[in-house]
Amino acid sequence: MQVQVISSVKEACSAKFTQKTAIAIDVLRATSTIVTALASGASSVVPAETVMDAKAIQRPGDVMGGERFCRKIAGFDLGNSPKEYEERTVSNRRIILTTTNGTRAIHKSMRADYVLAASLLNAEACARAALDLKRDIVILCAGSHDDFAIEDGLCAGLLVDHLKEISPIPIECDDFGNAMHAMYRDRSSRILETLLGSASGKRLQKLGSREDIEDCALVNSKGVVPFLSGEQIILR
Amino acid sequence: MQVQVISSVKEACSAKFTQKTAIAIDVLRATSTIVTALASGASSVVPAETVMDAKAIQRPGDVMGGERFCRKIAGFDLGNSPKEYEERTVSNRRIILTTTNGTRAIHKSMRADYVLAASLLNAEACARAALDLKRDIVILCAGSHDDFAIEDGLCAGLLVDHLKEISPIPIECDDFGNAMHAMYRDRSSRILETLLGSASGKRLQKLGSREDIEDCALVNSKGVVPFLSGEQIILR
Repeated sequence: MQVQVISSVKEACSAKFTQKTAIAIDVLRATSTIVTALASGASSVVPAETVMDAKAIQRPGDVMGGERFCRKIAGFDLGNSPKEYEERTVSNRRIILTTTNGTRAIHKSMRADYVLAASLLNAEACARAALDLKRDIVILCAGSHDDFAIEDGLCAGLLVDHLKEISPIPIECDDFGNAMHAMYRDRSSRILETLLGSASGKRLQKLGSREDIEDCALVNSKGVVPFLSGEQIILR
Repeated sequence: MQVQVISSVKEACSAKFTQKTAIAIDVLRATSTIVTALASGASSVVPAETVMDAKAIQRPGDVMGGERFCRKIAGFDLGNSPKEYEERTVSNRRIILTTTNGTRAIHKSMRADYVLAASLLNAEACARAALDLKRDIVILCAGSHDDFAIEDGLCAGLLVDHLKEISPIPIECDDFGNAMHAMYRDRSSRILETLLGSASGKRLQKLGSREDIEDCALVNSKGVVPFLSGEQIILR
């Protein structure tokens, strides 16, 4: 089974996704928030590329969430902190979510046969689900404003680690996947430290969101696998 | 001191190089060949982007070297194997070199204040020279056909490792630089194995050039620092 890792949304052309299982990653914070929202009982999450798109699809009862420049969008119910997406707020509600990088990554992946959303929170569950789908895998790191983000690469490396451990057939990675796997192995005992030292992590700490980083660093704390069905993300 | 690492030539825009020291890397094989040629006494190496450019600047006595699709160019004196660039062939001669990725990387870096050529062979010497130049550093991994190449990332990580060890002032890396440093640390005891398992390494082995890979894996075996002066690369 072939596994390819793409370093940022800018590198993602549709052709790379055809007939594959895509795994989209935006550790700080979109996919961590999606995982948390669905684990808290949200009925679905609809990723919207722009604030205008989000407002256009809003129906009564929807929860509007997202960020621009790491801050909540004016008039929206929630920002992009996983902790906001708790059961009493999102249970049985549809979430419309628009973020700078993560929702773009999911839209970029839509040409794939299957699209899963991974974060450090649910990496092992995601790796198992992806293996079950029996397609070659392309892991898309959202990155930050078209640049590589180390926290997404770390999650890609963790996914590769689980895939290699679990898969009954050999996993063949491209050079970038092998590099991310080696990087993860060097940093596996310093996950939170790596997130705090990343460019995105430093930006969030300046905005007073250190707790979000801690929440996003809880490796394999959730067993849910968000996957795209039509235009919405639901639980597998 | 800021250190930025760029994953492939495709990612390199000229603005990233202004007022910096650039270090261009193409481990398999262009910068390993340049290092070897200059260490063997070549008077200079002129990187040419195309075969036509190379022929246009040829003067009597020049040695013509390079590759396309990993093979020697018809009518040229030498290919792109470091071992061909030995003293009796290149001493006191000017080399005109054109390769698929490495010479492009050097041309892309030309906006920098200084341009050095690094390989695993001369990484420590290069790190020391770059520190002496007292500019922020941008390390450009040539990659392979616009994709990331793990052997170039490994050399970038080795450079970061030396920079952090040697520098009297703190070295601040971008996310990709920190990722390559961590990757290098995981792989530092398996350098040759990493090169043999890389996409470029597999291609070279198919063409019978395993010995080249072994030659390019000899970490810090040479103390020379090739740097760009006008259109030609000479020893510092």
